[in-house]
Amino acid sequence: MLEVGQEYSLSYSFTQTDVDNFAKLCGDTNPIHIDPEYARKSVFGRLIIHGYLGASIFSKVLGTIFPGEGTIYLGQTIKFYNPMFVDEIYTAKFEVLEVIRDKHRAKIRTTVYSKNDEIVQTGEALIMNKEKI
Amino acid sequence: MLEVGQEYSLSYSFTQTDVDNFAKLCGDTNPIHIDPEYARKSVFGRLIIHGYLGASIFSKVLGTIFPGEGTIYLGQTIKFYNPMFVDEIYTAKFEVLEVIRDKHRAKIRTTVYSKNDEIVQTGEALIMNKEKI
Repeated sequence: MLEVGQEYSLSYSFTQTDVDNFAKLCGDTNPIHIDPEYARKSVFGRLIIHGYLGASIFSKVLGTIFPGEGTIYLGQTIKFYNPMFVDEIYTAKFEVLEVIRDKHRAKIRTTVYSKNDEIVQTGEALIMNKEKI
Repeated sequence: MLEVGQEYSLSYSFTQTDVDNFAKLCGDTNPIHIDPEYARKSVFGRLIIHGYLGASIFSKVLGTIFPGEGTIYLGQTIKFYNPMFVDEIYTAKFEVLEVIRDKHRAKIRTTVYSKNDEIVQTGEALIMNKEKI
């Protein structure tokens, strides 16, 4: 059972192929994600990953690992503090902030750190899991 | 230039192939999204779309249409009120709630409605666009 204070971390990265596939899948063909020439002239100086793709690690972990199977996603807040780049290692950290046992719900802080321990995304997830919370 | 009160709507749908591709891409292989037998026995009675995939329409519209090119995503809140299903038509509605002109930022209400006008997702996006806000 999930308890307040429990933590979980996972490192991950995306390739430009992942970004191109996500652009096709969701239709967000903003050139900052897929056009190297455009991106070079932008404030970032290079292509950046879609914020949602970077944040999709939250969906993966909550739905398959921590707490895993049976998780229903009720809500998510995300602040995109810094851009994410392909082929760089990021670490998603999860910390259980609150457990509402009778409703099988938990509030979980979700944060993505760069390899330099800089916060790139942070927010909170609200989930339900009848067997694990 | 984006103004408070401006609205934009777009209808969309996803196929099971989209859902399967998103599961592979982000690693969220929660069986509720990809295993028909498991889903049939669940509270939903059928496969549901990943919440993030359903919400990715916000990224598409804000990044490519309303306000479009040049948009930088600063934040998003999402409440998942109801499940989304493949091959059903949904409508994403955007309403400009606040414009912070000197920072080129806007707060936009983002809501997804089912074909029966039921709210399936709602939240707020915070974006920056130096040319359009």
